[in-house]
Amino acid sequence: MQSAPSIQLLLDELERLPGVGPKSAQRMAYFILNSDKATAMRLAEAIVEVKSTVHFCERCFNYAESELCEICASTKRDRSVIAVVSEPRDIPPIERTGVFHGLYHVLGGALAPMEGIGPDDLRIAELMKRLGTEEVAEVVLATNPNIEGETTAAYLARLIKPLGMTVTRPASGLPVGGDLEFADEVTLGRALEGRRPL
Amino acid sequence: MQSAPSIQLLLDELERLPGVGPKSAQRMAYFILNSDKATAMRLAEAIVEVKSTVHFCERCFNYAESELCEICASTKRDRSVIAVVSEPRDIPPIERTGVFHGLYHVLGGALAPMEGIGPDDLRIAELMKRLGTEEVAEVVLATNPNIEGETTAAYLARLIKPLGMTVTRPASGLPVGGDLEFADEVTLGRALEGRRPL
Repeated sequence: MQSAPSIQLLLDELERLPGVGPKSAQRMAYFILNSDKATAMRLAEAIVEVKSTVHFCERCFNYAESELCEICASTKRDRSVIAVVSEPRDIPPIERTGVFHGLYHVLGGALAPMEGIGPDDLRIAELMKRLGTEEVAEVVLATNPNIEGETTAAYLARLIKPLGMTVTRPASGLPVGGDLEFADEVTLGRALEGRRPL
Repeated sequence: MQSAPSIQLLLDELERLPGVGPKSAQRMAYFILNSDKATAMRLAEAIVEVKSTVHFCERCFNYAESELCEICASTKRDRSVIAVVSEPRDIPPIERTGVFHGLYHVLGGALAPMEGIGPDDLRIAELMKRLGTEEVAEVVLATNPNIEGETTAAYLARLIKPLGMTVTRPASGLPVGGDLEFADEVTLGRALEGRRPL
């Protein structure tokens, strides 16, 4: 097939995106070719901008543009509750439920002994340090409801309960084996409201 | 929901892409945030590059990086056959069939009287000029097999047949009412081989 080299290059890069196959890459490339230059530049600049300004929040390891992310910096959050999640992408679905008003802690993954991911590969030491210095009454273990997430939650529960704080997990009701990232607001909100002590 | 402003901006721009909803925009944005800077920059640069180097081929109005597109510039093409298509995005699926070896002419749309798109809004004058100056024996009217495409093909057939050249249309076999862009290679290849005079 004879495509201009710069179009082929764009197709290759678009296909790297998650969920984008050859046909959707082609639709996107032709959309970009068809759109006015300003629109295309806004997309390119948004990518450049996000990579140059976004880093990890110093406290919770969510994505942030300042030292602290917008949630840690907010004066409206309940600092006595911390939700522990695997990845930054797990935070927006929880926020959308409107049910949770505490802070977060992003582990940066989940325990997966088969893949060689142990406690030292996650931000567990950083979590324990926070629990030692911040006034935390409850830790919500909001890792994914799959094997790695459950393993991680069980591991953390054993570690945290001796500190005397309440340790909870969102109620089942979440489809088991799935990804928290794709849960709908209502299901996830109900699961958060019905969270139970471990 | 509290997202860093630059992440929200990226989400907004990604959602403009065809077939990208809020959830897939979020998956893509987190992929970009998660990937190393070089990978993200390659995507941004591919977008910038394609907008600065790609314009319309002077002969057929396909996308091109030089005055002529790679197909018009090729010495291996059969210059006696021209396939008329609506958009540049219709060319790659035809090329992938390996069945067509002629040149193209991109109309830049299709007749749609209800939307006020008439013959003067398409590159029909440019096509007629080509047919008057180039040595063309056959014109394949490969517009989409939907109402606008059929209308355009019928209009062009009436215009071109008096010039004495063969006018064909890819055989039906293409799913009617669909878009040529999404046809699979085999169906489209068979339809091209079985093209019939109008």
